Amino acid sequence: MTPVITVFERSPDRGKGLARDMRVRWALEEVGQAYEVRLVSFGAMKEPVHRALHPFGQIPTYEEGTLVLFESGAIVFYIAERHAGLLPDDANARARAIAWMFAALNTVEPPILDLQTTKFMERDKTWYDERLLIVEDRIRDRLGELSDRLGNADWLDGAFSAGDLIMVSVLLRLKASGLLDEYPNLSAYVARGEARPAYKRAFAAQLAVFVASQSPIA
Amino acid sequence: MTPVITVFERSPDRGKGLARDMRVRWALEEVGQAYEVRLVSFGAMKEPVHRALHPFGQIPTYEEGTLVLFESGAIVFYIAERHAGLLPDDANARARAIAWMFAALNTVEPPILDLQTTKFMERDKTWYDERLLIVEDRIRDRLGELSDRLGNADWLDGAFSAGDLIMVSVLLRLKASGLLDEYPNLSAYVARGEARPAYKRAFAAQLAVFVASQSPIA
Repeated sequence: MTPVITVFERSPDRGKGLARDMRVRWALEEVGQAYEVRLVSFGAMKEPVHRALHPFGQIPTYEEGTLVLFESGAIVFYIAERHAGLLPDDANARARAIAWMFAALNTVEPPILDLQTTKFMERDKTWYDERLLIVEDRIRDRLGELSDRLGNADWLDGAFSAGDLIMVSVLLRLKASGLLDEYPNLSAYVARGEARPAYKRAFAAQLAVFVASQSPIA
Repeated sequence: MTPVITVFERSPDRGKGLARDMRVRWALEEVGQAYEVRLVSFGAMKEPVHRALHPFGQIPTYEEGTLVLFESGAIVFYIAERHAGLLPDDANARARAIAWMFAALNTVEPPILDLQTTKFMERDKTWYDERLLIVEDRIRDRLGELSDRLGNADWLDGAFSAGDLIMVSVLLRLKASGLLDEYPNLSAYVARGEARPAYKRAFAAQLAVFVASQSPIA
Protein backbone atom coordinates (compact mmCIF):
# COMPACT_ATOMS: atom_id res chain seq x y z
CA MET A 1 0.00 0.00 0.00
CA THR A 2 1.52 3.33 -1.07
CA PRO A 3 1.54 5.81 1.82
CA VAL A 4 0.03 9.25 1.32
CA ILE A 5 1.50 12.35 2.95
CA THR A 6 0.00 15.82 3.14
CA VAL A 7 2.07 18.87 2.21
CA PHE A 8 1.49 22.60 1.82
CA GLU A 9 -0.36 23.46 -1.38
CA ARG A 10 1.87 26.56 -1.46
CA SER A 11 4.76 26.32 0.96
CA PRO A 12 5.44 29.53 2.90
CA ASP A 13 9.19 28.97 2.40
CA ARG A 14 8.64 29.05 -1.39
CA GLY A 15 10.18 25.63 -1.98
CA LYS A 16 13.33 26.03 0.14
CA GLY A 17 12.69 22.62 1.69
CA LEU A 18 12.13 23.91 5.21
CA ALA A 19 8.54 22.71 5.64
CA ARG A 20 8.22 19.59 7.75
CA ASP A 21 7.07 17.35 4.91
CA MET A 22 10.69 17.52 3.68
CA ARG A 23 11.83 15.35 6.62
CA VAL A 24 9.29 12.70 5.74
CA ARG A 25 10.03 12.85 2.01
CA TRP A 26 13.74 12.52 2.75
CA ALA A 27 13.19 9.48 4.97
CA LEU A 28 10.99 7.82 2.34
CA GLU A 29 13.64 8.46 -0.32
CA GLU A 30 16.41 7.07 1.91
CA VAL A 31 14.58 3.76 2.29
CA GLY A 32 13.28 3.68 -1.29
CA GLN A 33 9.58 3.77 -0.41
CA ALA A 34 7.32 5.35 -3.05
CA TYR A 35 4.66 7.73 -1.74
CA GLU A 36 1.83 9.92 -2.88
CA VAL A 37 1.23 13.52 -1.95
CA ARG A 38 -2.00 15.34 -1.17
CA LEU A 39 -1.84 19.15 -1.25
CA VAL A 40 -3.56 21.07 1.55
CA SER A 41 -4.27 24.81 1.55
CA PHE A 42 -3.78 26.98 4.66
CA GLY A 43 -7.54 27.21 4.99
CA ALA A 44 -8.16 23.49 4.66
CA MET A 45 -5.44 22.71 7.23
CA LYS A 46 -7.56 24.29 9.95
CA GLU A 47 -10.82 22.60 8.91
CA PRO A 48 -12.30 19.57 10.70
CA VAL A 49 -11.51 17.16 7.83
CA HIS A 50 -7.78 17.81 8.14
CA ARG A 51 -7.86 18.18 11.92
CA ALA A 52 -9.25 14.64 12.11
CA LEU A 53 -5.86 13.60 10.72
CA HIS A 54 -3.77 16.21 12.52
CA PRO A 55 -5.13 17.60 15.81
CA PHE A 56 -2.90 20.69 15.55
CA GLY A 57 -3.95 21.53 11.99
CA GLN A 58 -0.50 21.21 10.45
CA ILE A 59 1.34 19.20 7.80
CA PRO A 60 2.61 16.58 7.26
CA THR A 61 0.32 13.66 7.98
CA TYR A 62 0.94 10.07 6.92
CA GLU A 63 -1.77 7.64 5.85
CA GLU A 64 -1.16 3.99 5.13
CA GLY A 65 -4.21 1.75 5.05
CA THR A 66 -6.07 2.35 8.31
CA LEU A 67 -3.09 4.04 9.98
CA VAL A 68 -3.09 7.82 10.31
CA LEU A 69 -0.02 9.48 11.82
CA PHE A 70 0.93 13.09 12.42
CA GLU A 71 4.10 14.78 13.72
CA SER A 72 7.11 14.58 11.42
CA GLY A 73 9.42 13.03 14.04
CA ALA A 74 6.95 10.22 14.64
CA ILE A 75 6.44 9.62 10.93
CA VAL A 76 10.18 9.47 10.26
CA PHE A 77 10.54 7.04 13.15
CA TYR A 78 7.71 4.88 11.82
CA ILE A 79 9.42 4.70 8.43
CA ALA A 80 12.81 4.03 10.04
CA GLU A 81 11.43 1.13 12.10
CA ARG A 82 9.90 -0.59 9.07
CA HIS A 83 12.71 -0.28 6.52
CA ALA A 84 16.45 -0.83 6.58
CA GLY A 85 18.77 2.15 6.32
CA LEU A 86 17.77 4.68 8.96
CA LEU A 87 18.39 2.87 12.26
CA PRO A 88 21.36 0.64 13.15
CA ASP A 89 20.79 -3.04 13.92
CA ASP A 90 22.79 -2.97 17.14
CA ALA A 91 20.34 -2.33 20.00
CA ASN A 92 22.47 0.25 21.81
CA ALA A 93 23.37 2.13 18.62
CA ARG A 94 19.68 2.11 17.66
CA ALA A 95 18.73 3.62 21.03
CA ARG A 96 21.37 6.32 20.60
CA ALA A 97 20.15 7.18 17.09
CA ILE A 98 16.64 7.59 18.51
CA ALA A 99 18.06 9.79 21.28
CA TRP A 100 19.47 12.10 18.61
CA MET A 101 16.04 12.33 16.98
CA PHE A 102 14.53 13.47 20.26
CA ALA A 103 17.48 15.78 20.98
CA ALA A 104 17.09 17.45 17.59
CA LEU A 105 13.37 18.01 18.13
CA ASN A 106 13.21 18.83 21.83
CA THR A 107 16.59 20.41 22.64
CA VAL A 108 17.98 21.93 19.42
CA GLU A 109 14.84 22.94 17.53
CA PRO A 110 12.94 24.94 20.23
CA PRO A 111 15.24 27.99 20.19
CA ILE A 112 15.38 27.78 16.38
CA LEU A 113 11.58 27.78 16.27
CA ASP A 114 11.63 30.73 18.65
CA LEU A 115 13.86 32.64 16.24
CA GLN A 116 11.44 31.99 13.39
CA THR A 117 8.41 32.89 15.49
CA THR A 118 10.12 36.08 16.63
CA LYS A 119 10.95 37.04 13.05
CA PHE A 120 7.41 36.41 11.84
CA MET A 121 5.36 37.60 14.80
CA GLU A 122 7.36 40.21 16.70
CA ARG A 123 8.99 42.20 13.91
CA ASP A 124 6.75 45.20 14.59
CA LYS A 125 7.62 45.31 18.30
CA THR A 126 9.94 47.93 19.78
CA TRP A 127 11.92 45.14 21.40
CA TYR A 128 12.48 43.19 18.19
CA ASP A 129 16.19 43.86 17.63
CA GLU A 130 17.15 43.31 21.26
CA ARG A 131 15.17 40.09 21.52
CA LEU A 132 16.60 38.74 18.29
CA LEU A 133 20.09 38.93 19.81
CA ILE A 134 18.93 37.07 22.92
CA VAL A 135 17.35 34.27 20.92
CA GLU A 136 20.39 33.99 18.65
CA ASP A 137 22.61 33.56 21.69
CA ARG A 138 20.39 30.75 22.97
CA ILE A 139 20.79 29.04 19.62
CA ARG A 140 24.57 29.54 19.77
CA ASP A 141 24.65 27.76 23.14
CA ARG A 142 23.07 24.67 21.56
CA LEU A 143 25.13 24.86 18.38
CA GLY A 144 28.35 25.13 20.37
CA GLU A 145 27.48 22.02 22.36
CA LEU A 146 26.45 20.12 19.26
CA SER A 147 29.60 21.22 17.44
CA ASP A 148 31.75 19.99 20.34
CA ARG A 149 30.06 16.61 20.31
CA LEU A 150 30.23 16.15 16.55
CA GLY A 151 33.91 17.11 16.37
CA ASN A 152 35.46 15.76 13.19
CA ALA A 153 32.95 12.94 12.72
CA ASP A 154 30.79 12.70 9.62
CA TRP A 155 27.63 11.83 11.54
CA LEU A 156 26.49 12.04 15.16
CA ASP A 157 26.95 8.38 16.08
CA GLY A 158 28.76 6.30 13.49
CA ALA A 159 26.74 5.71 10.34
CA PHE A 160 24.09 8.11 9.00
CA SER A 161 20.79 7.53 10.82
CA ALA A 162 17.32 8.98 11.35
CA GLY A 163 18.96 11.03 14.11
CA ASP A 164 21.15 12.79 11.54
CA LEU A 165 18.23 13.16 9.15
CA ILE A 166 16.21 15.04 11.76
CA MET A 167 19.17 17.02 13.09
CA VAL A 168 20.23 18.20 9.62
CA SER A 169 16.61 19.13 8.86
CA VAL A 170 16.45 21.20 12.04
CA LEU A 171 19.80 22.93 11.38
CA LEU A 172 18.82 23.76 7.78
CA ARG A 173 16.28 26.20 9.22
CA LEU A 174 19.24 28.34 10.32
CA LYS A 175 20.83 28.69 6.91
CA ALA A 176 19.42 32.11 6.13
CA SER A 177 20.41 33.45 9.57
CA GLY A 178 24.13 32.87 9.01
CA LEU A 179 24.43 31.31 12.48
CA LEU A 180 25.48 27.97 11.07
CA ASP A 181 28.49 29.57 9.38
CA GLU A 182 29.98 30.23 12.82
CA TYR A 183 30.43 26.46 13.27
CA PRO A 184 32.35 25.06 10.28
CA ASN A 185 31.94 21.43 11.32
CA LEU A 186 28.15 21.87 11.60
CA SER A 187 28.01 23.60 8.21
CA ALA A 188 29.93 20.70 6.70
CA TYR A 189 27.62 18.24 8.49
CA VAL A 190 24.54 19.91 7.01
CA ALA A 191 26.20 19.98 3.58
CA ARG A 192 26.85 16.23 3.85
CA GLY A 193 23.14 15.73 4.47
CA GLU A 194 22.17 17.90 1.52
CA ALA A 195 24.59 16.00 -0.73
CA ARG A 196 22.82 12.67 -0.19
CA PRO A 197 20.96 11.52 -3.31
CA ALA A 198 17.82 10.84 -1.24
CA TYR A 199 17.88 14.40 0.10
CA LYS A 200 18.24 15.80 -3.42
CA ARG A 201 15.31 13.76 -4.73
CA ALA A 202 13.12 14.86 -1.81
CA PHE A 203 14.15 18.49 -2.27
CA ALA A 204 13.36 18.41 -5.99
CA ALA A 205 9.95 16.86 -5.30
CA GLN A 206 8.89 19.53 -2.80
CA LEU A 207 10.26 22.31 -5.02
CA ALA A 208 8.22 20.99 -7.96
CA VAL A 209 5.04 21.36 -5.87
CA PHE A 210 5.84 24.98 -5.12
CA VAL A 211 6.77 25.79 -8.70
CA ALA A 212 3.52 24.25 -9.96
CA SER A 213 1.56 26.34 -7.44
CA GLN A 214 3.01 29.49 -9.05
CA SER A 215 1.88 28.54 -12.53
CA PRO A 216 -0.58 31.08 -13.97
CA ILE A 217 -2.71 28.20 -15.25
CA ALA A 218 -3.18 26.68 -11.80
CA MET B 1 21.49 -4.72 35.54
CA THR B 2 19.93 -1.84 37.49
CA PRO B 3 19.84 1.34 35.38
CA VAL B 4 21.30 4.54 36.81
CA ILE B 5 19.78 7.93 36.07
CA THR B 6 21.21 11.35 36.82
CA VAL B 7 19.09 14.00 38.54
CA PHE B 8 19.62 17.50 39.92
CA GLU B 9 21.46 17.49 43.25
CA ARG B 10 19.18 20.40 44.18
CA SER B 11 16.27 20.77 41.77
CA PRO B 12 15.52 24.38 40.77
CA ASP B 13 11.78 23.64 41.11
CA ARG B 14 12.33 22.72 44.78
CA GLY B 15 10.86 19.23 44.40
CA LYS B 16 7.71 20.13 42.46
CA GLY B 17 8.40 17.28 40.04
CA LEU B 18 8.93 19.50 37.00
CA ALA B 19 12.54 18.51 36.28
CA ARG B 20 12.91 16.08 33.38
CA ASP B 21 14.11 13.18 35.53
CA MET B 22 10.49 12.96 36.73
CA ARG B 23 9.39 11.63 33.32
CA VAL B 24 11.97 8.89 33.46
CA ARG B 25 11.23 8.01 37.10
CA TRP B 26 7.52 7.83 36.28
CA ALA B 27 8.13 5.51 33.32
CA LEU B 28 10.36 3.26 35.41
CA GLU B 29 7.71 3.10 38.13
CA GLU B 30 4.96 2.32 35.60
CA VAL B 31 6.85 -0.73 34.35
CA GLY B 32 8.15 -1.78 37.77
CA GLN B 33 11.84 -1.36 36.96
CA ALA B 34 14.09 -0.54 39.94
CA TYR B 35 16.69 2.15 39.34
CA GLU B 36 19.51 4.02 41.02
CA VAL B 37 20.03 7.74 41.11
CA ARG B 38 23.22 9.76 40.87
CA LEU B 39 23.01 13.40 41.96
CA VAL B 40 24.69 16.04 39.80
CA SER B 41 25.32 19.64 40.82
CA PHE B 42 24.78 22.58 38.43
CA GLY B 43 28.53 22.96 38.17
CA ALA B 44 29.23 19.28 37.49
CA MET B 45 26.52 19.17 34.78
CA LYS B 46 28.62 21.48 32.62
CA GLU B 47 31.91 19.62 33.17
CA PRO B 48 33.43 17.21 30.63
CA VAL B 49 32.69 14.11 32.73
CA HIS B 50 28.95 14.74 32.58
CA ARG B 51 29.02 16.12 29.05
CA ALA B 52 30.47 12.80 27.91
CA LEU B 53 27.10 11.36 28.95
CA HIS B 54 24.95 14.33 27.91
CA PRO B 55 26.28 16.60 25.14
CA PHE B 56 23.99 19.45 26.23
CA GLY B 57 25.04 19.32 29.89
CA GLN B 58 21.61 18.52 31.28
CA ILE B 59 19.81 15.85 33.27
CA PRO B 60 18.57 13.14 33.06
CA THR B 61 20.92 10.58 31.61
CA TYR B 62 20.35 6.83 31.65
CA GLU B 63 23.10 4.26 32.02
CA GLU B 64 22.57 0.52 31.74
CA GLY B 65 25.66 -1.61 31.19
CA THR B 66 27.50 -0.12 28.23
CA LEU B 67 24.49 1.91 27.08
CA VAL B 68 24.42 5.64 27.78
CA LEU B 69 21.32 7.61 26.79
CA PHE B 70 20.29 11.24 27.17
CA GLU B 71 17.09 13.16 26.36
CA SER B 72 14.09 12.27 28.51
CA GLY B 73 11.81 11.44 25.58
CA ALA B 74 14.32 8.94 24.23
CA ILE B 75 14.86 7.39 27.64
CA VAL B 76 11.12 6.99 28.24
CA PHE B 77 10.80 5.42 24.80
CA TYR B 78 13.67 3.03 25.50
CA ILE B 79 11.98 1.91 28.72
CA ALA B 80 8.59 1.64 26.97
CA GLU B 81 10.01 -0.56 24.21
CA ARG B 82 11.56 -3.02 26.65
CA HIS B 83 8.77 -3.44 29.19
CA ALA B 84 5.03 -4.02 28.97
CA GLY B 85 2.67 -1.26 30.04
CA LEU B 86 3.63 1.91 28.17
CA LEU B 87 3.01 1.05 24.51
CA PRO B 88 0.08 -0.90 23.03
CA ASP B 89 0.72 -4.25 21.31
CA ASP B 90 -1.29 -3.32 18.21
CA ALA B 91 1.15 -1.89 15.65
CA ASN B 92 -1.02 1.07 14.60
CA ALA B 93 -1.96 1.97 18.19
CA ARG B 94 1.73 1.75 19.10
CA ALA B 95 2.66 4.15 16.27
CA ARG B 96 -0.02 6.59 17.40
CA ALA B 97 1.19 6.48 21.02
CA ILE B 98 4.69 7.31 19.78
CA ALA B 99 3.22 10.16 17.70
CA TRP B 100 1.77 11.64 20.90
CA MET B 101 5.20 11.47 22.53
CA PHE B 102 6.69 13.48 19.68
CA ALA B 103 3.70 15.85 19.61
CA ALA B 104 4.07 16.55 23.32
CA LEU B 105 7.78 17.30 22.97
CA ASN B 106 7.92 19.09 19.63
CA THR B 107 4.51 20.79 19.28
CA VAL B 108 3.10 21.35 22.77
CA GLU B 109 6.23 21.85 24.86
CA PRO B 110 8.09 24.53 22.82
CA PRO B 111 5.73 27.44 23.68
CA ILE B 112 5.60 26.20 27.28
CA LEU B 113 9.40 26.22 27.40
CA ASP B 114 9.31 29.70 25.92
CA LEU B 115 7.06 30.85 28.77
CA GLN B 116 9.49 29.48 31.33
CA THR B 117 12.50 30.96 29.55
CA THR B 118 10.74 34.33 29.31
CA LYS B 119 9.90 34.26 33.02
CA PHE B 120 13.45 33.40 34.02
CA MET B 121 15.48 35.37 31.50
CA GLU B 122 13.42 38.37 30.37
CA ARG B 123 11.78 39.50 33.59
CA ASP B 124 13.96 42.60 33.78
CA LYS B 125 13.05 43.73 30.25
CA THR B 126 10.70 46.63 29.59
CA TRP B 127 8.74 44.38 27.23
CA TYR B 128 8.25 41.58 29.78
CA ASP B 129 4.53 42.00 30.49
CA GLU B 130 3.54 42.43 26.85
CA ARG B 131 5.59 39.47 25.69
CA LEU B 132 4.21 37.24 28.45
CA LEU B 133 0.72 37.77 27.03
CA ILE B 134 1.88 36.87 23.52
CA VAL B 135 3.52 33.65 24.69
CA GLU B 136 0.50 32.71 26.80
CA ASP B 137 -1.73 33.08 23.74
CA ARG B 138 0.53 30.77 21.74
CA ILE B 139 0.17 28.20 24.51
CA ARG B 140 -3.63 28.65 24.48
CA ASP B 141 -3.68 27.84 20.76
CA ARG B 142 -2.06 24.49 21.46
CA LEU B 143 -4.11 23.76 24.57
CA GLY B 144 -7.34 24.50 22.72
CA GLU B 145 -6.42 22.06 19.95
CA LEU B 146 -5.34 19.42 22.43
CA SER B 147 -8.52 19.92 24.46
CA ASP B 148 -10.64 19.50 21.33
CA ARG B 149 -8.91 16.27 20.44
CA LEU B 150 -9.05 14.80 23.96
CA GLY B 151 -12.75 15.59 24.39
CA ASN B 152 -14.26 13.41 27.10
CA ALA B 153 -11.72 10.63 26.77
CA ASP B 154 -9.54 9.58 29.69
CA TRP B 155 -6.35 9.31 27.61
CA LEU B 156 -5.23 10.52 24.19
CA ASP B 157 -5.63 7.24 22.30
CA GLY B 158 -7.41 4.50 24.24
CA ALA B 159 -5.36 3.11 27.11
CA PHE B 160 -2.76 5.10 29.05
CA SER B 161 0.55 5.11 27.15
CA ALA B 162 3.99 6.69 27.05
CA GLY B 163 2.30 9.39 24.94
CA ASP B 164 0.11 10.35 27.88
CA LEU B 165 3.02 10.10 30.28
CA ILE B 166 5.01 12.66 28.29
CA MET B 167 2.01 14.89 27.53
CA VAL B 168 0.94 15.05 31.19
CA SER B 169 4.54 15.79 32.18
CA VAL B 170 4.66 18.66 29.69
CA LEU B 171 1.29 20.10 30.79
CA LEU B 172 2.26 19.92 34.46
CA ARG B 173 4.76 22.71 33.76
CA LEU B 174 1.77 25.02 33.28
CA LYS B 175 0.19 24.40 36.65
CA ALA B 176 1.52 27.51 38.34
CA SER B 177 0.49 29.72 35.39
CA GLY B 178 -3.21 28.97 35.76
CA LEU B 179 -3.50 28.39 31.99
CA LEU B 180 -4.47 24.76 32.45
CA ASP B 181 -7.52 25.81 34.50
CA GLU B 182 -9.03 27.34 31.36
CA TYR B 183 -9.40 23.83 29.90
CA PRO B 184 -11.30 21.63 32.39
CA ASN B 185 -10.82 18.43 30.41
CA LEU B 186 -7.06 19.01 30.27
CA SER B 187 -6.94 19.75 34.00
CA ALA B 188 -8.80 16.50 34.65
CA TYR B 189 -6.45 14.66 32.28
CA VAL B 190 -3.40 15.92 34.14
CA ALA B 191 -5.06 15.03 37.47
CA ARG B 192 -5.63 11.48 36.19
CA GLY B 193 -1.93 11.24 35.47
CA GLU B 194 -0.97 12.54 38.89
CA ALA B 195 -3.36 10.06 40.55
CA ARG B 196 -1.53 7.04 39.13
CA PRO B 197 0.36 5.12 41.83
CA ALA B 198 3.49 5.07 39.66
CA TYR B 199 3.37 8.87 39.33
CA LYS B 200 3.00 9.24 43.08
CA ARG B 201 5.96 6.97 43.80
CA ALA B 202 8.11 8.86 41.30
CA PHE B 203 7.03 12.21 42.72
CA ALA B 204 7.83 11.13 46.29
CA ALA B 205 11.25 9.90 45.21
CA GLN B 206 12.26 13.16 43.53
CA LEU B 207 10.86 15.21 46.42
CA ALA B 208 12.92 13.17 48.88
CA VAL B 209 16.09 14.14 47.00
CA PHE B 210 15.23 17.82 47.25
CA VAL B 211 14.28 17.62 50.94
CA ALA B 212 17.56 15.85 51.72
CA SER B 213 19.47 18.58 49.84
CA GLN B 214 17.99 21.15 52.26
CA SER B 215 19.16 19.28 55.36
CA PRO B 216 21.57 21.37 57.48
CA ILE B 217 23.75 18.26 57.91
CA ALA B 218 24.21 17.77 54.17
